[in-house]
Amino acid sequence: MTVVRPENVHQARLMRRLRDDGPRSRAELGDAVALSRSKLAAEIDRLVDRGLLDTDGYADSRGGRRSAIVRVGRRIRFAGIDIGATSVDVALTDGELHVLSHRAAPVDVRDGPDAVIARALAVLGELRDEDDAPLAGAGVGVPGPVSFADGVPVSPPIMPGWNRFPVRDTFAAALGCPVLVDNDVNIMALGEKHAGVARSVDDFLFVKIGTGIGCGIVVRGEVYRGVNGCAGDIGHMSVDEHGPVCACGNIGCLEAFFGGAALRTQALTAARTGRSAVLARRLAEAGDLSAVDVTHAASAGDGVAVAMIREGGQRLGHALAGLVSFVNPGLVVIGGGVASIGHALLAEIRGAVYRTSLPLATGNLPITLSELGGRAGVVGAVRLASDHLYRAA
Amino acid sequence: MTVVRPENVHQARLMRRLRDDGPRSRAELGDAVALSRSKLAAEIDRLVDRGLLDTDGYADSRGGRRSAIVRVGRRIRFAGIDIGATSVDVALTDGELHVLSHRAAPVDVRDGPDAVIARALAVLGELRDEDDAPLAGAGVGVPGPVSFADGVPVSPPIMPGWNRFPVRDTFAAALGCPVLVDNDVNIMALGEKHAGVARSVDDFLFVKIGTGIGCGIVVRGEVYRGVNGCAGDIGHMSVDEHGPVCACGNIGCLEAFFGGAALRTQALTAARTGRSAVLARRLAEAGDLSAVDVTHAASAGDGVAVAMIREGGQRLGHALAGLVSFVNPGLVVIGGGVASIGHALLAEIRGAVYRTSLPLATGNLPITLSELGGRAGVVGAVRLASDHLYRAA
Repeated sequence: MTVVRPENVHQARLMRRLRDDGPRSRAELGDAVALSRSKLAAEIDRLVDRGLLDTDGYADSRGGRRSAIVRVGRRIRFAGIDIGATSVDVALTDGELHVLSHRAAPVDVRDGPDAVIARALAVLGELRDEDDAPLAGAGVGVPGPVSFADGVPVSPPIMPGWNRFPVRDTFAAALGCPVLVDNDVNIMALGEKHAGVARSVDDFLFVKIGTGIGCGIVVRGEVYRGVNGCAGDIGHMSVDEHGPVCACGNIGCLEAFFGGAALRTQALTAARTGRSAVLARRLAEAGDLSAVDVTHAASAGDGVAVAMIREGGQRLGHALAGLVSFVNPGLVVIGGGVASIGHALLAEIRGAVYRTSLPLATGNLPITLSELGGRAGVVGAVRLASDHLYRAA
Repeated sequence: MTVVRPENVHQARLMRRLRDDGPRSRAELGDAVALSRSKLAAEIDRLVDRGLLDTDGYADSRGGRRSAIVRVGRRIRFAGIDIGATSVDVALTDGELHVLSHRAAPVDVRDGPDAVIARALAVLGELRDEDDAPLAGAGVGVPGPVSFADGVPVSPPIMPGWNRFPVRDTFAAALGCPVLVDNDVNIMALGEKHAGVARSVDDFLFVKIGTGIGCGIVVRGEVYRGVNGCAGDIGHMSVDEHGPVCACGNIGCLEAFFGGAALRTQALTAARTGRSAVLARRLAEAGDLSAVDVTHAASAGDGVAVAMIREGGQRLGHALAGLVSFVNPGLVVIGGGVASIGHALLAEIRGAVYRTSLPLATGNLPITLSELGGRAGVVGAVRLASDHLYRAA
């Protein structure tokens, strides 16, 4: 596999700037990157020769000769693959990370790496069928702790068969390009940082409420992964010493109270005991219940469903209050499938955080919903891959 | 005030290396900093001219001419000032941050900044009376949140009269040198990083148990202060929704259960209700009780005092377990006055953390006592000041 990379830090900076700002005239670029005119021209020529940049007509004159416009090479492609517990999202983007196509497919992560990776590659193959540009890189998110340097999941609780499986190397061999693997919550945080609500924020928390609950920590503009790659793993924080036993064996974990799995359990109980007629009806129709059914029931005014969301939001908010006092972030973003509950949930979380955290830590703290929603993961994944490509060789 | 600083990044790197490694021959330095022989000689000469370096004889020959030894200027001095709730620690160090003299004096931080700063300056004056070298910089720690960029405390809960008081500028005017101000827990963490148990660790938590409880967070080798300078403020994390009302008005804060103030309250109750004969006797003798009395009573086998330490350690350990899962640090250091309880406390904290955190986060996690003890603050303070001086002008 032949990877073309910037040759030096100037070229790398040019690439990242054009990725984030879009096409620019040579004159504008010269102002922005503080290179002499001749040095800039030489670096741009090298990048054009190597296919990393394209020229794109001329800008309006700023007084003298019209300045040529340059842009990230039109044939650069990145793939973003976001593997969740029950689905895989795949996106194909250009070199500026605009999503060209995006497709989701149901998978069960418990089927193991061979089946799930094959499915992800098949979906990516469908997206690439209409596009013959070569892949410059791919980013992959998985729903568990990852050793980032090795590109392997490490003791992921909900991914039987994946422990230390060479996810990065398997994708890299199949795709013939560099691949980076990270925890799914980290890539969602990176997505919001790249193109979402956290674009201008250097220190923030991204809280994902999906089947489980996790948190991405961005410190000084970069994802903080911790010593073993499991930083942000808040789903199994004990929030109530007298709470129920969690699937992990500990007592009173946050995920035992809230998240997609906990909501499903609570909904089934409410349906079977007849406490919620709405959920009982839905269970009879569908044979099973999920967090989405709780959302619908709450919207329909079902008191039991409303109470589940209220109590879950308060539990999460209370745990988050401690973390907010601890990290003193500039922003908290709430994302993941269950976050689609929306503003009712947000209100509960906000209430609990503002009530319980130090005033100094929450004085100017916005708590907001993810802007990218279901795209946060794939956008973060391609951002990860492009950060890797757009650095000096 | 005339501050002599390194003129460029090479000089700054040389200064930091000689500070941390001690005197070195020119030949050894050349190997370490990757400068050509002539460039190195020129930079060293400039630093010697400006009083930042001294020459110090010759090293043994490595085959050719004997190489001159250079060291941090002998007349460089730093002051470290660690203001606590009830005492101030002051140290005077040389340019390699060796403590030349160290003195503690009782203060009451509630007396306000004028009185406390005057006391700290008087103690420093005593230390400097026997030393006529000028101060190159000073670091100051205060027991509350600090806006690091402004050098002022911000809404510090236990420091009435200090909110936004110009601590940095008051010290700088009195001392005629640059001054940096930070939260006391942050400088203790920095002290352990510079010369203590965390010397080789880039990501760790420093938990201070004094009158209150706080946490210093070191990320990628640097203190993480958060957006408002209050990161690590864990004393008022709510650890029990059904707990007692804390002095701050919230319910079940960690400090309501443990720390010097909580132990004093619990000890007074145990003495007055006759549950602890040892503490009752001590109260009759001294008229008051403190955390130290609890430690002594526990050492003497007093069951009530032992239970206080056990329960406090478990409370703290339980809260810490969540933070360890969240941050995934490489080390946890326990310091502060109450940490002098020692290994009985450490055992309780460890037990609670290892029992409640994710195995991946605690697999290789050492939890250990501070190595510098009462000196951690002043050492961190001079390190802060020297980092500021030993950078390019």
